[in-house]
Amino acid sequence: MRISDVVERFGGVCDGDETVEISGITGVELAGVGDTTYAVDEPALTQAEAAGATCVIVPRDLRSSSVTLLRCDSPQRYAAELMSFFNPPPAMSPGVHPSAIIGERTLVNESVSIGPGVVIGENCRIDADAVLMASVVVQDHCAIGAQTVVHPNVTVYARTLIGARDIIHAGAVLGADGFGYFPDEGRLHKWPHIGNVVIEDDVEIGANACVDRAKFGTTLIERGAKIDNLVQIAHNCRIGRGAILAAQTGVSGSVVIEEGVICGGQVGISDHRVIGRGARLGAQSGILADVPPGEDMFGHPARPLQPAMQDVAFIRYLTQNRRALRRLIKSADKG
Amino acid sequence: MRISDVVERFGGVCDGDETVEISGITGVELAGVGDTTYAVDEPALTQAEAAGATCVIVPRDLRSSSVTLLRCDSPQRYAAELMSFFNPPPAMSPGVHPSAIIGERTLVNESVSIGPGVVIGENCRIDADAVLMASVVVQDHCAIGAQTVVHPNVTVYARTLIGARDIIHAGAVLGADGFGYFPDEGRLHKWPHIGNVVIEDDVEIGANACVDRAKFGTTLIERGAKIDNLVQIAHNCRIGRGAILAAQTGVSGSVVIEEGVICGGQVGISDHRVIGRGARLGAQSGILADVPPGEDMFGHPARPLQPAMQDVAFIRYLTQNRRALRRLIKSADKG
Amino acid sequence: MRISDVVERFGGVCDGDETVEISGITGVELAGVGDTTYAVDEPALTQAEAAGATCVIVPRDLRSSSVTLLRCDSPQRYAAELMSFFNPPPAMSPGVHPSAIIGERTLVNESVSIGPGVVIGENCRIDADAVLMASVVVQDHCAIGAQTVVHPNVTVYARTLIGARDIIHAGAVLGADGFGYFPDEGRLHKWPHIGNVVIEDDVEIGANACVDRAKFGTTLIERGAKIDNLVQIAHNCRIGRGAILAAQTGVSGSVVIEEGVICGGQVGISDHRVIGRGARLGAQSGILADVPPGEDMFGHPARPLQPAMQDVAFIRYLTQNRRALRRLIKSADKG
Repeated sequence: MRISDVVERFGGVCDGDETVEISGITGVELAGVGDTTYAVDEPALTQAEAAGATCVIVPRDLRSSSVTLLRCDSPQRYAAELMSFFNPPPAMSPGVHPSAIIGERTLVNESVSIGPGVVIGENCRIDADAVLMASVVVQDHCAIGAQTVVHPNVTVYARTLIGARDIIHAGAVLGADGFGYFPDEGRLHKWPHIGNVVIEDDVEIGANACVDRAKFGTTLIERGAKIDNLVQIAHNCRIGRGAILAAQTGVSGSVVIEEGVICGGQVGISDHRVIGRGARLGAQSGILADVPPGEDMFGHPARPLQPAMQDVAFIRYLTQNRRALRRLIKSADKG
Repeated sequence: MRISDVVERFGGVCDGDETVEISGITGVELAGVGDTTYAVDEPALTQAEAAGATCVIVPRDLRSSSVTLLRCDSPQRYAAELMSFFNPPPAMSPGVHPSAIIGERTLVNESVSIGPGVVIGENCRIDADAVLMASVVVQDHCAIGAQTVVHPNVTVYARTLIGARDIIHAGAVLGADGFGYFPDEGRLHKWPHIGNVVIEDDVEIGANACVDRAKFGTTLIERGAKIDNLVQIAHNCRIGRGAILAAQTGVSGSVVIEEGVICGGQVGISDHRVIGRGARLGAQSGILADVPPGEDMFGHPARPLQPAMQDVAFIRYLTQNRRALRRLIKSADKG
Repeated sequence: MRISDVVERFGGVCDGDETVEISGITGVELAGVGDTTYAVDEPALTQAEAAGATCVIVPRDLRSSSVTLLRCDSPQRYAAELMSFFNPPPAMSPGVHPSAIIGERTLVNESVSIGPGVVIGENCRIDADAVLMASVVVQDHCAIGAQTVVHPNVTVYARTLIGARDIIHAGAVLGADGFGYFPDEGRLHKWPHIGNVVIEDDVEIGANACVDRAKFGTTLIERGAKIDNLVQIAHNCRIGRGAILAAQTGVSGSVVIEEGVICGGQVGISDHRVIGRGARLGAQSGILADVPPGEDMFGHPARPLQPAMQDVAFIRYLTQNRRALRRLIKSADKG
């Protein structure tokens, strides 16, 4: 595909040889002679030039004397579009595989693709262009929205509602019982969990992640939230719009994570805490108290990033000077 | 259902209007006008009254001037019973789905419910009223006890013995090989794991949790232990009666967790450690040494809770006073 | 089986009664009267003697006056061979279960064993003696090498290449999309992940572990690496030969773990970090910077083991002497 054709289809402006052929796109760190790549800034462009790239997708204000540029408003978005264009996901043909089992009173839109071994319960609704891959299990009274893709071996417990354009990766478990017991007569009794899980639109949930159903009410994953592999969301949580939770993070019961929170990997959050809008939680942080909006947190127990890093630095300073400090303490003890 | 009928069926005493209708029960934080809820103490009752609840289940010693009370010995247990009564889990009809595959010499009680796509190996025994949901895989020589529920996509490796009234949530893996290698002639060799996993009665195991088989002998989960989602139990561990392990906790090989231990989320325990009866391990703790019975631990490396919190507080005190401390160290260095 | 027969078959030298019968082997901590076990050193041999073991497999230089010894170059290797001999894994008969579904242009060697409910996509290649257990899902354009065993409910996304003699435990997910988004026009956009996952030979991957596909290029697990349960390997990582990653470790995007690294449980590694050859990372460490070859690291943020442990010890020293230190700081503040 010539650059001129690319520009015609995807927009942007070519600065250089419009007749160059593009057959794909790669990352700047992998780019070699003849490749097309993208650069969000000057250093990345320099790297692409040095690598001998033929064509580089750049913001409108960058210039180059050695490579053909494709200027656009958002090189990332442009690159993502080309990646999908040259490497389209496999087309899922509509239809229900004969080995799939679908319960009574379940409505499956005729454009839906249902793979081998899929099991869907009763009274469900699967909307247009949804894809349920092999061995997915969906229990009774669930909904799966339009264009949502559910990867293999996912389990969706009863009464879970999944929105549109969601991506649920393999092995994820949505709607299992929350972890709650009460002691009575010398042993633990299980709290029934009669609530459910609701996942709004444009959410992505990682492989083998778990979202537990509410005890009462709903565990809610709001529009556009992104949840990585092996994350645990306990019962009755609310994960706000566009929140990002990196891998292996654990969110205890009834936590509220507000819009736009960014959470590093392996973070743990105690139950009933509220993480304010736009807060950022450093990897492995242990959040024991509420976090104000916009705050950056770090450590275990977590505190604001700056004093937390000061603690770390100052402890090292102390241990480096531990002889002097020991002498001081000794003299103070005598005094 | 009128309160008088509820009392007749579930016990307790009505203090107020016995003719009030109850159609369900909800949590006090969600309760609104006309709802039935429960309150374990005075503040919760006040909250329920303020919310306009119609009926509140309370301990025998609480009083109210504004709402109908249903007094009983254990409001939690009473509430749990009503939750199950008004929201019964879907009835699983006995029988083997025609798509299920069952190996030779496997005994399946006629009251068992086996879902679509279930695969059971040879020489297994599935006891009365057990439920194996869709796509569960059980390998050879396993046993599953009476009334145990195995949720979809669970894998049970060969020779695993599962007790009665257990609940195994979706995606859990029971009996995979322990993680053990020995170096020889410049490469790692795998230890065979010829032991197994035994899960006693009344155990619950969370979604995508893993319990590895023993190298020799048995990895044992004792009666009534509760294990949350994404927990890792390594080979040869023993998890004591009624122990509670919150999500994403990792227990290394040959650890003994004694009866009644409570373990927060994301705790890590080093191999061969013994956690004494009734000890409590704070979330994210890293347990590197044995823990005495009844001890509360916190931090990484974990130590008893009180000095651990003192460390945390004292470090903050030091960093807040770091100028003074630096000045002191400087003078001590000169001295 | 008499020891003389064992020696004939597996090598080594018998020191004692060659006519003793061996019917299995157990661990020294479980050994009792009449058992066969192994001991890598003098204390283990003493333990076995005290337990009344009949036969102990030992290195060539150990002696015993009370038990029959079986001397060899590597007692571990010898024991592992006997364990497999006396407890052979169930024989998987070659053939494709009639319920399995195999896509077009997929080559399945006739010696392969494919279990019930397995789904394999198009254009795949399954090599000699591979075993795909029940409910495994393999998408298009994948390869699975000779003698590789894939346990139940594993998901292999498209274009994943798996080598020979690998073991993939139940519930593992190989090749899911990496976790990458870019903000544009006020919302998050998903980066397509057009790379793949390559797993070389002799790798073991634990239950419910996740290895994400690369954005561009390949996420690579090199020959002989061992990855435990619930580990997360993000997009574009390279895990070096013979590296060992214990359970619940999380490796962020584009990390390089070089040959022979040993990584404890629940370790977290920040993106783009390089962990040098033979480094060892203590359990729960948080790796924020590159680690030089051979270094032992500990803590969060992690630093070399010795100073990290000094920090821990010195903080305790300070808190134990906090009254004296407070008095000093007070006087310095006045000064």
